[in-house]
Amino acid sequence: MTIQSFVPPLRTLMGPGPSDVHPRVLAAMSRPTIGHLDPAFVAMMDEVKAMLQYAFQTTNALTIAVSAPGSAGMETCFVNLVEPGDKVIVCQNGVFGGRMKENVERTGGVAVMVEDAWGTPIDPDKLERALKAHADAKIVAFVHAETSTGVQSDAKTLAALASKHGCLTIVDAVTSLGGTPLKLDEWGIDAVYSGSQKCLSCTPGLSPVSINERAADKIRNRKSKVQSWFLDLNLVMGYWGSGKRAYHHTAPINPLYGLHEALVMLQEEGLENSWARHQKYHLALRAGIEAMGLGFYVAEKHRLPQLNAVTVPAGVDEAEVRARLLQDYNLEIGAGLGALAGKIWRIGLMGYGANLKNVLYCLGALEAVLADMRAPVKQGVAASSASRAIA
Amino acid sequence: MTIQSFVPPLRTLMGPGPSDVHPRVLAAMSRPTIGHLDPAFVAMMDEVKAMLQYAFQTTNALTIAVSAPGSAGMETCFVNLVEPGDKVIVCQNGVFGGRMKENVERTGGVAVMVEDAWGTPIDPDKLERALKAHADAKIVAFVHAETSTGVQSDAKTLAALASKHGCLTIVDAVTSLGGTPLKLDEWGIDAVYSGSQKCLSCTPGLSPVSINERAADKIRNRKSKVQSWFLDLNLVMGYWGSGKRAYHHTAPINPLYGLHEALVMLQEEGLENSWARHQKYHLALRAGIEAMGLGFYVAEKHRLPQLNAVTVPAGVDEAEVRARLLQDYNLEIGAGLGALAGKIWRIGLMGYGANLKNVLYCLGALEAVLADMRAPVKQGVAASSASRAIA
Repeated sequence: MTIQSFVPPLRTLMGPGPSDVHPRVLAAMSRPTIGHLDPAFVAMMDEVKAMLQYAFQTTNALTIAVSAPGSAGMETCFVNLVEPGDKVIVCQNGVFGGRMKENVERTGGVAVMVEDAWGTPIDPDKLERALKAHADAKIVAFVHAETSTGVQSDAKTLAALASKHGCLTIVDAVTSLGGTPLKLDEWGIDAVYSGSQKCLSCTPGLSPVSINERAADKIRNRKSKVQSWFLDLNLVMGYWGSGKRAYHHTAPINPLYGLHEALVMLQEEGLENSWARHQKYHLALRAGIEAMGLGFYVAEKHRLPQLNAVTVPAGVDEAEVRARLLQDYNLEIGAGLGALAGKIWRIGLMGYGANLKNVLYCLGALEAVLADMRAPVKQGVAASSASRAIA
Repeated sequence: MTIQSFVPPLRTLMGPGPSDVHPRVLAAMSRPTIGHLDPAFVAMMDEVKAMLQYAFQTTNALTIAVSAPGSAGMETCFVNLVEPGDKVIVCQNGVFGGRMKENVERTGGVAVMVEDAWGTPIDPDKLERALKAHADAKIVAFVHAETSTGVQSDAKTLAALASKHGCLTIVDAVTSLGGTPLKLDEWGIDAVYSGSQKCLSCTPGLSPVSINERAADKIRNRKSKVQSWFLDLNLVMGYWGSGKRAYHHTAPINPLYGLHEALVMLQEEGLENSWARHQKYHLALRAGIEAMGLGFYVAEKHRLPQLNAVTVPAGVDEAEVRARLLQDYNLEIGAGLGALAGKIWRIGLMGYGANLKNVLYCLGALEAVLADMRAPVKQGVAASSASRAIA
């Protein structure tokens, strides 16, 4: 066997994540490894915590980066907060709501599903009816930014409803953190998880999680042990907490260097500016897409700026388009998932990747490929439309 | 808040892990991120799999890197293989056997503990007695290389006993993989987990896991779902398996670049050569340590070459020694854990770190610090003794 060093192709990542990673983050990843109990590393973890609090707009003491991808961040929230028998209202309008249901059930909870069509936001009225019908529910779980459809739900209203009915909230903010307004404390969200590889422009593998005091109390007062040792926040708190650091597991040192750098950059730019930048380049992309004669799957006011669900024109083999973009342009865009497979492309403008170069490159490549495949798109207008939209 | 980019100090890592990471691995970590469903990445995952099979000396199809640290690799084995009510014999001779017990119990299994003194290996006779007393046991779990004590147990004999009594084996090879002989197929080990940050010289955050057909059958035929969604091998198999790659979670792309490079280096050196190199520099370190008048906590024939438990001399404040080594020499060595706290230092010679430069640097720094603290050690003989031992 003679396997050689792996030298990846140079892609432009405009799918649903991972997104393009900033060179500063990549450089940080390769800094010399130090011990996970080294005082210098412990101080760095404290900085990561402070910067995550800023990104989440919270003062929650229990704000950490789980040492595994977003799926593990999701599981962290569910295994800690759901006790056997707990009723959890899960709002589903895409793939990731379904994964929440799986998590509730594997934790011994009872999931009550509130479903909305894929491509539409969660309907607060339906949630309220469910809350009234299930007065014994303890938790409401929903996805803020559905990565599978490009839809944004009104997290503020949903969290307020849950709170009004005495429920805790678990919110999936994997794709929203850093890209679109998310205000934990102001909106009264109790538990949230995200991912490093979306609007933070970091590599995949870490999951920012934040839990407020109300939720932490439920965890501290559990009747049964958390079923996962690795994700047990009662133990993880000792590792990320202040005071003497108790050994729990070995943190992924270098990926945390990367996340630290990504968060330093978010602070330098300013959170509001980051949100505005995502919106700005979404408008540019939208203008170009529409100028070509293509449309969006999601109604305008519910669109995520960082994840654009573009409707595949009739008669076009969407998989071939993606394959050509990857092969001939080193450009990755995403396919539809589940109910939307074959119907949409998912074009990400996340973090560092939300910039004019990526917008124009994507529009140009898409235009060229579609023209070559004789799809009915207007030629030669996308780039100027995009540029004009943000002039 | 003005948090700056983090520039880590340049340490020499000779504790229980993470160990010094090779510059080639660090360089690989910073290569451009690509998508986790990119054909180029899928091909790289196949190579990682093939090289892990080599490192584990197995042909197991289910050989993967779990997307989280060793603790999650441990949990992967237990949550998949232990079904509620299953009796598991856990051999404990250090910290990590205790963690296995926690895992069994949180998975709804019944742990039968077989205990040996910390600093001694697992006694096969005791295991056999337990197997006879518990004919209904389904699994035997033990640690091959106890990171907390520096002891190696006879995995081959223990696995054969388990098999003779119809039990599956789960083996912790976190510290042994790549550093000391481990032959999955020849020894009949059914399930094993390891870590990236020990003798593979990679950064922490990934956990190599391998499961043979007998164990995979138990997983496929479970009566209940695996309690963890993130670690469910029935789902992960679809992600790492051959054929069409099913999306499960987003793999940590760049850390996998690092692991790939570490495994390429292991192949270049050859597994047997890597084992021999660990032994060689252990002998050098041993000669130097003994020449200084210090001793080893573990009996010679049970010592791990890659993790040296050195007895703290009477009257010496061991924490001060470690603090001085870190502060004045940027050298990290490990403290004792649990029952051995205060009694031993743990000096790692793992992976890339098992080299003459590290051995002589550690001996020199230790000699200087101990002399400065007026500890009773012989001066000026360690380096020459170490060098002579491997001449």
